[in-house]
Amino acid sequence: MAASSLDSVIALAKRRGFVFQSGEIYGGSRSAWDYGPLGVELKENIKRQWWRTMVQGRDDVVGLDSAVILPRQVWEASGHVEVFSDPLVESLHTHKRYRADHLIEAYEAKHGHPPENGLADIRDPETGQPGSWTEPRAFSGLMKTFLGPVDDEAGMHYLRPETAQGIFVNFANVVQASRMKPPFGIGQIGKSFRNEITPGNFIFRTREFEQMEMEFFVEPGTDETWHQYWIDESYRFYTELGIAADNLRLYEHPREKLSHYSKRTVDVEYRFGFTGSEWGELMGVANRTDFDLRTHAEASGKDLSFFDQAQNTRWTPFVIEPAFGLTRALMAFLVDAYAEDEAPNTKGGVDKRTVLRLDPRLSPVKAAVLPLSRNERLSPLAKQVAADLRREWNVEFDDAGAIGRRYRRQDEIGTPFCITVDFDSLDDQAVTVRGRDTMQQDRVGLDRLRSYLGAALIGA
Amino acid sequence: MAASSLDSVIALAKRRGFVFQSGEIYGGSRSAWDYGPLGVELKENIKRQWWRTMVQGRDDVVGLDSAVILPRQVWEASGHVEVFSDPLVESLHTHKRYRADHLIEAYEAKHGHPPENGLADIRDPETGQPGSWTEPRAFSGLMKTFLGPVDDEAGMHYLRPETAQGIFVNFANVVQASRMKPPFGIGQIGKSFRNEITPGNFIFRTREFEQMEMEFFVEPGTDETWHQYWIDESYRFYTELGIAADNLRLYEHPREKLSHYSKRTVDVEYRFGFTGSEWGELMGVANRTDFDLRTHAEASGKDLSFFDQAQNTRWTPFVIEPAFGLTRALMAFLVDAYAEDEAPNTKGGVDKRTVLRLDPRLSPVKAAVLPLSRNERLSPLAKQVAADLRREWNVEFDDAGAIGRRYRRQDEIGTPFCITVDFDSLDDQAVTVRGRDTMQQDRVGLDRLRSYLGAALIGA
Repeated sequence: MAASSLDSVIALAKRRGFVFQSGEIYGGSRSAWDYGPLGVELKENIKRQWWRTMVQGRDDVVGLDSAVILPRQVWEASGHVEVFSDPLVESLHTHKRYRADHLIEAYEAKHGHPPENGLADIRDPETGQPGSWTEPRAFSGLMKTFLGPVDDEAGMHYLRPETAQGIFVNFANVVQASRMKPPFGIGQIGKSFRNEITPGNFIFRTREFEQMEMEFFVEPGTDETWHQYWIDESYRFYTELGIAADNLRLYEHPREKLSHYSKRTVDVEYRFGFTGSEWGELMGVANRTDFDLRTHAEASGKDLSFFDQAQNTRWTPFVIEPAFGLTRALMAFLVDAYAEDEAPNTKGGVDKRTVLRLDPRLSPVKAAVLPLSRNERLSPLAKQVAADLRREWNVEFDDAGAIGRRYRRQDEIGTPFCITVDFDSLDDQAVTVRGRDTMQQDRVGLDRLRSYLGAALIGA
Repeated sequence: MAASSLDSVIALAKRRGFVFQSGEIYGGSRSAWDYGPLGVELKENIKRQWWRTMVQGRDDVVGLDSAVILPRQVWEASGHVEVFSDPLVESLHTHKRYRADHLIEAYEAKHGHPPENGLADIRDPETGQPGSWTEPRAFSGLMKTFLGPVDDEAGMHYLRPETAQGIFVNFANVVQASRMKPPFGIGQIGKSFRNEITPGNFIFRTREFEQMEMEFFVEPGTDETWHQYWIDESYRFYTELGIAADNLRLYEHPREKLSHYSKRTVDVEYRFGFTGSEWGELMGVANRTDFDLRTHAEASGKDLSFFDQAQNTRWTPFVIEPAFGLTRALMAFLVDAYAEDEAPNTKGGVDKRTVLRLDPRLSPVKAAVLPLSRNERLSPLAKQVAADLRREWNVEFDDAGAIGRRYRRQDEIGTPFCITVDFDSLDDQAVTVRGRDTMQQDRVGLDRLRSYLGAALIGA
């Protein structure tokens, strides 16, 4: 995927209302993005597919939705207060701040080797001049807020930087209420907040973002097998929903760079085509060992071990964590679906078209109903067809402009079916259904329309 | 709904894993609640019904998902920085803090009239002694956080206290990208944060909560008609999903107590059976006039008016806002569905049972597959039946304990169907399906099972 393609996708996403700059009329926030009418549907569809695949569709996983703001002890026990920080440096030229590790990674990506003299080799990204940098200092990625009437230490809380800890502190509650036993998982979708020094690359790195995380609890000794199982399942989540395997790769974290809780971590990366480094992390699968349950048991004084009746022993489960970034997945699905090709026009020739070849389960709009022209005889029937389908799917009605142009509008947002209502429809009670990818046209009776679409929209 | 019933519902919600105390192992946070395996399914089902009814099912409403953290100017223009505060008083006995308006409302609810001498008449809620209070002072309900490397004024942002402002600031973007024209609406579901002085009544008042809000933009002069329309539609949302009309009422805000932006506001209230005041607000429908678009246009310098081509005039739309509390709706659905009755047992007698008569579209579990006993001949078939149904619905498999007890477990979480696999099933390839409410039992062939359930689970 070339960088120019990434730019085209971003332009399309902004133009068609997938993604807006947050707070744009006030000059914009660099911290987050807003999802417009099409973006929110696409994002919800990804969530639904994840929930069905990872939670509802399995008998060994249950769901959870824990709060963003948890007691401070949670983040002390998890190690976040102590170690969740990034090395911050300031340019002495521009007084702008950067993450030192990002500067070094960008250098490596460009030169193929790390800077020999550390930061001294790195040019200022803004001026391009040889850089001059402050010493790196630790900068906490946790965002604070204050609860209660006074902004004091007692009321200071953190916004969660990951949904995972909300799962760990509910482990005993879930085991008791749902009677699950390891191996089993708890899945959660929700927002997290990190005080990134340098948000960027469109929706890729933001301070407010959404995660789809699962903590899968297993018997110690079975953890490496389960870890590999979840690496494979996670990879399959993307390919099953249409991402080309050529644009995916696995990245094994070097042992010396593992997080403090991890025994092994493997990321799934997507070829976004960023300037500098073309690959970006979509998600990571970590073997968190028994670190989390053990530290929370120690800090809270609550027993978070599991009594294994069959073996008459007690052990603290190991945790395998597949942690998906929701908005990164959305960006990857958009980039991978983006194509430019040609479609026959009404004059017997061909037109260039932009098309999003999204899996129909992900498409924000499942079908568009297009009367051949804006006409008082066609409109009532076309509106009736749209209203009928809307009871089941997200459906657009569009009667503005030339029919060819309306097809192109639907193609570029990935709508799998365009349904044309013409003057024959008034007599034969049938419509023409055009497939987005095949561009094949079928004449379908109104009484069969729901089942015709339903067959192609299974699971949507 | 008597208070004892409310207590029973809360006990059930905690025991069966609908709702857990957030951060319970660390003594709990008073600010929020966590939703367990059943709670998260119920909550998602309410969201889905709202989205289908209010957004996808209509051709005049589109969706949006804007960020929690917006630029500070948004909250300055909206008036929140200036007026979003509550009167806070402190008891000189206990040094605990209370909202003065809540103390006065509780007095009124108990005595049928306001306190003649103001706060001087109000007893300390903790000691019961005649109270002694500090003067009320304004306490901001906005929660702050800091973005960027330094906790300074420049990085200070607020967490949104309502999702509505994210809609207003995207008004022009949505109009442009989706080509909507008034009358039309933008719906949004998401978390909001308010620094409540006294969170309480279980999940009713929390500092972190979820909203389902719509801003419906109309031509000035048509606003009062549209306001009434959305009051009726909002009320109908609850009754359509099974809430008894006896337990709902409308509350008209007195003119002198209207929010600074409102011309008229009507709440839908539910009879929760709280101690003190039995009714609680579920949602409000406000006529916000053109306050929001006008103030954001003035503050941002962007034109947020609408050019009406048909009439060749330009006007700023009025806004009708139906604002639903999601977690309050969840609590109301639980309380209203709760019942205790009798069910026939396997010995020819009757057992008392607790049953949640939830609308099947809301039930967290749609069907439970129960082999008659834990048995190596029954289990494979029963598990196969569960796996088949799980591709479409959230389905439980339970083979632990007496069958009567397993029925009771499903009744009390509101599962519409229990499917029993018995030894005859091995021969006739059929199962017994029992309805939760009718307790009628039907023998259904496995080849017909999906369509049998599907007919009763339309829209689920």
